[in-house]
Amino acid sequence: MTDSTTADVDRAARAAAGAFTATAAASARERAGWLRSVAEELDRNVDELVGIAGRETGLTEPRLRGEVARTSGQLRMFADVIEEGSYLEAVIDHADAGATPPKPDLRRILRPIGPVAIFAASNFPFAFSVAGGDTAAALAVGAPVVVKAHSGHRELSERTAELVTAALSAAGAPQGTFSLVSGREAGIALIEHPLIAAGSFTGSVAGGRALYDRAAQRPDPIPFFGELGSLNPVVVTAAADRARGAVLAEGLATSFQGSSGQLCTKPGLVLVPEDSVLEVALAAHVGESAHRLLTDSIDAAFRDGTEQLAAIPGVELVAGAGPAESQEPRPVVYAAGLEVFADARYREALTAEVFGPATLLVRYPDSVDDLPSHLAALEGSLTATIHAEPEDDIEELVAVLGERAGRLLFAGWPTGVAVTWSQHHGGPWPATTSQHTSVGATATRRFQRPIVYQDAPERVLPDALLDANPLGIPRRVDGALVVR
Amino acid sequence: MTDSTTADVDRAARAAAGAFTATAAASARERAGWLRSVAEELDRNVDELVGIAGRETGLTEPRLRGEVARTSGQLRMFADVIEEGSYLEAVIDHADAGATPPKPDLRRILRPIGPVAIFAASNFPFAFSVAGGDTAAALAVGAPVVVKAHSGHRELSERTAELVTAALSAAGAPQGTFSLVSGREAGIALIEHPLIAAGSFTGSVAGGRALYDRAAQRPDPIPFFGELGSLNPVVVTAAADRARGAVLAEGLATSFQGSSGQLCTKPGLVLVPEDSVLEVALAAHVGESAHRLLTDSIDAAFRDGTEQLAAIPGVELVAGAGPAESQEPRPVVYAAGLEVFADARYREALTAEVFGPATLLVRYPDSVDDLPSHLAALEGSLTATIHAEPEDDIEELVAVLGERAGRLLFAGWPTGVAVTWSQHHGGPWPATTSQHTSVGATATRRFQRPIVYQDAPERVLPDALLDANPLGIPRRVDGALVVR
Repeated sequence: MTDSTTADVDRAARAAAGAFTATAAASARERAGWLRSVAEELDRNVDELVGIAGRETGLTEPRLRGEVARTSGQLRMFADVIEEGSYLEAVIDHADAGATPPKPDLRRILRPIGPVAIFAASNFPFAFSVAGGDTAAALAVGAPVVVKAHSGHRELSERTAELVTAALSAAGAPQGTFSLVSGREAGIALIEHPLIAAGSFTGSVAGGRALYDRAAQRPDPIPFFGELGSLNPVVVTAAADRARGAVLAEGLATSFQGSSGQLCTKPGLVLVPEDSVLEVALAAHVGESAHRLLTDSIDAAFRDGTEQLAAIPGVELVAGAGPAESQEPRPVVYAAGLEVFADARYREALTAEVFGPATLLVRYPDSVDDLPSHLAALEGSLTATIHAEPEDDIEELVAVLGERAGRLLFAGWPTGVAVTWSQHHGGPWPATTSQHTSVGATATRRFQRPIVYQDAPERVLPDALLDANPLGIPRRVDGALVVR
Repeated sequence: MTDSTTADVDRAARAAAGAFTATAAASARERAGWLRSVAEELDRNVDELVGIAGRETGLTEPRLRGEVARTSGQLRMFADVIEEGSYLEAVIDHADAGATPPKPDLRRILRPIGPVAIFAASNFPFAFSVAGGDTAAALAVGAPVVVKAHSGHRELSERTAELVTAALSAAGAPQGTFSLVSGREAGIALIEHPLIAAGSFTGSVAGGRALYDRAAQRPDPIPFFGELGSLNPVVVTAAADRARGAVLAEGLATSFQGSSGQLCTKPGLVLVPEDSVLEVALAAHVGESAHRLLTDSIDAAFRDGTEQLAAIPGVELVAGAGPAESQEPRPVVYAAGLEVFADARYREALTAEVFGPATLLVRYPDSVDDLPSHLAALEGSLTATIHAEPEDDIEELVAVLGERAGRLLFAGWPTGVAVTWSQHHGGPWPATTSQHTSVGATATRRFQRPIVYQDAPERVLPDALLDANPLGIPRRVDGALVVR
């Protein structure tokens, strides 16, 4: 796939804008049909897709097969979500002539925002790429999509786009509902295109910031939903370490090495008591090798990041092999004392996300009571994890980590993001550039905006706002929630 | 009130950040108490407040008394909204060990985003100012507030802040929950302060854009919820003009002259058939004089805006008096043909918001079927209004105006924004800088962000997420909405 020209981008944006009136007018049932058609097409072609993806990304076959299943599952989940109808947030307030001042009839609903630019990620060639969660959420609400392919898996992107286009067409979606463009310059032209109404992105802080800035600096700024970088701190109390340090070591090892550590929720900072069972047990679970990283630039950044960590006075190699010991990327665990972590000179390097199979243990001398001030200084993360025992007082830890992260875990590890009604995959900057999630049912919100109809005749109202509620969806009517 | 120094701003932001843990932890019942306490204090001091406001703004006493009632009403509405509990969007998905992969227990809720900077408007010295809707929405969800006073009503701002501070203190809100700062430089320091987590603003496009840019250019960009400018187009069909042109004329006249036209929802562009009853009837309802405008700069901008309109070839004065005829600001109605409106050379001046008692009629020659392409080219507005008869085919008008505005009216006039569950006061740029509303129950969303608890023990969960639902709030549990 060659880079798209500016004319290609313009054509895609115009096609999306041309489709918009029809995609916005399509019923939830129709759009659910589009999503299920794409899901079936992916599942039907899983062998071919996984083959291409394996060659292009280096990710393992089991991981990629699981990811295709997750991706088609996401598409089907959004189909279910829009058929349920709550995503419209329909609210009806009938007129009240007796109020001071009198109140008109007002009926609110969410509608699609317009054509959306979606920037695919490198590390999830299916689930956060061409037919991934962002595409599914946008199509679900009736927003046409122009995807900017990730250069790390161009052939897969092109093949997936062919399947998506065919599936949408077969299911009756308007032409122009979905397009693919490719190349860095095309991406910039896309986010700046006057017909694009919103952007979404999963990737690095540098790349996401650059696109965020372009979106914000437009003559008409548009919302940009970026998921950028995340350290994902973990705190292990002394009691938890005593009770199950060896089990935690195994879980941590699996979590930070999976997919060669190239997950946005990889635990990158683990605060453990001094002389922890966890640290001693960890080495046995750290592999001799990792599969190759996704791209040359990720490989180079991993090398740089681990070199910077290794160079900090007081940082020790405790398991695996750093860049000095290995030409290939290998899993590696570093450790430092809390006094090193607290040193302002090293703070930036110690808290930078190192994308790949590396993690940093920070040994705290006494109790977790000393940690809140250190944790409060961290940048925002997608997740934070507390491993504690029932007798531990963790109230303050929960409060401070709740201000720094979007998901708080009290068992397990942050890698693995369940696609559910409740999920939130987001957090304070730089975890995300907005208050929204990119995983789970409420991811649709990013691509919707409210509209309210005042004193509208029935003939112009969407079905969702008719008094008779022909769609049978949950609504708030005159202040009361009505679930049918 | 003198301008605040940078040190004053820093003190206010630190006080807000210091209060945040406590405001976030306060129960909905406690926060509802704060809001009702402020509402009572405003109502108790209405005579004094209206006196100061009248001197400072030139707005009439009935208007200001109504605005105080609206403002205390807003505070009480948000108290009701948070006690109802839906604003938390609580979602519980219990663990599913049998799923592939197994699903953990996940519980989502919205929590306050952090300390909020609120920039007061000139034209609503109560309802969009110190104790206005933004302050009410932020306090409602537990976000501390630093208000930047509008220079147009400094004494009123200071007196209102005293009352708010006393009322919050009496109701037990933590110190630092609310502060007031003043001055342009202070406003910039405030939006750039590292402890401020979000901004909200009501005012001009230029002022809002400048602050939006500062918020977006921070090392850690923060959301900025601005309500900037709006033309509020109106379309009158030939049938509606025939049936009730004289009544529409009276309604339009009231709407564009009220508060001397200084309302963000003032109808600034009215598309009428040629030789309309409305146009002929309008002059009788256009006043000889308007009360003085809010500030010298608004007065100057009104003069500039009307001069620019009057200077366009083909634009006629049809009622009232333009700047050439009057030293004082006077209500004025201009008119032009659709061919003038379609002329690219004049487009910008013809579609610019003129804040003050002016409106522009555009006469279309044939039917409304010619209008959609012209309307599609308009910038975003807060509102759009269609006056039609049952026999009119307005499907296309509704579709195109639905893409350009946040509120669509089919009777009445856009000034007057009911404060309800359903209200949406927002629209595509430059109407607002976000997908959110600044009026109505969902205005709380701006100051919240989601958090999800994974496999959390009951002892760390907020009451809203306990299985027993001790707060009795609506929630989604394992996919199903549960209203108690």
